[in-house]
Amino acid sequence: MESEHWSKSEKAIARQAFEQALKRECASLMEKVRRRARGIAEPNDLWKLHDFLTKQRRNIDEKYDYRYSVLLFVFARLIGEGWLEEDELAGLSEDKLNRIRRILEWRNQ
Amino acid sequence: MESEHWSKSEKAIARQAFEQALKRECASLMEKVRRRARGIAEPNDLWKLHDFLTKQRRNIDEKYDYRYSVLLFVFARLIGEGWLEEDELAGLSEDKLNRIRRILEWRNQ
Repeated sequence: MESEHWSKSEKAIARQAFEQALKRECASLMEKVRRRARGIAEPNDLWKLHDFLTKQRRNIDEKYDYRYSVLLFVFARLIGEGWLEEDELAGLSEDKLNRIRRILEWRNQ
Repeated sequence: MESEHWSKSEKAIARQAFEQALKRECASLMEKVRRRARGIAEPNDLWKLHDFLTKQRRNIDEKYDYRYSVLLFVFARLIGEGWLEEDELAGLSEDKLNRIRRILEWRNQ
């Protein structure tokens, strides 16, 4: 993606949306881990929980990449996965919103 | 340690003691993980739980080594850490029991 300008207000909107999505995904993961932990009945459940956490941690580390060069792709993915609503990005330029929508369409094809 | 003879009955005693200690240590770890998981309140608690599981899994993988060449050291360690009682090894030769005791004394110095 070509380098593009982000205004100060766009950066604030982007940062808030990004943090909000991360907070939601982590809240969901915390609930899943608490539930899985309650169900631990044998040693193998421990190692399955460990594997699950390893995978989820890597997933979150890779997904939440706040470089402006990839941020529209990140937002499209977060919307596609349900961690973010498009209207939480209101205030970004129409061009950026259109590009996010196009990425989403490609994802959904 | 030099190679030594393990009789059939010694092997049975050793295997049972080994499995019993492993079962106890895993039961303790399961309880710790359930308790820690109940206390998860923020994302960082998830990653701390993951780090804890990574460390514990490696610890257990390394510790529970059932090669006869290292088994007396393993038993000494398990007794020293409280996962095994010496009398659960009753039936091993006096020589083996004495060697375990000597290793334990070195550990405790």
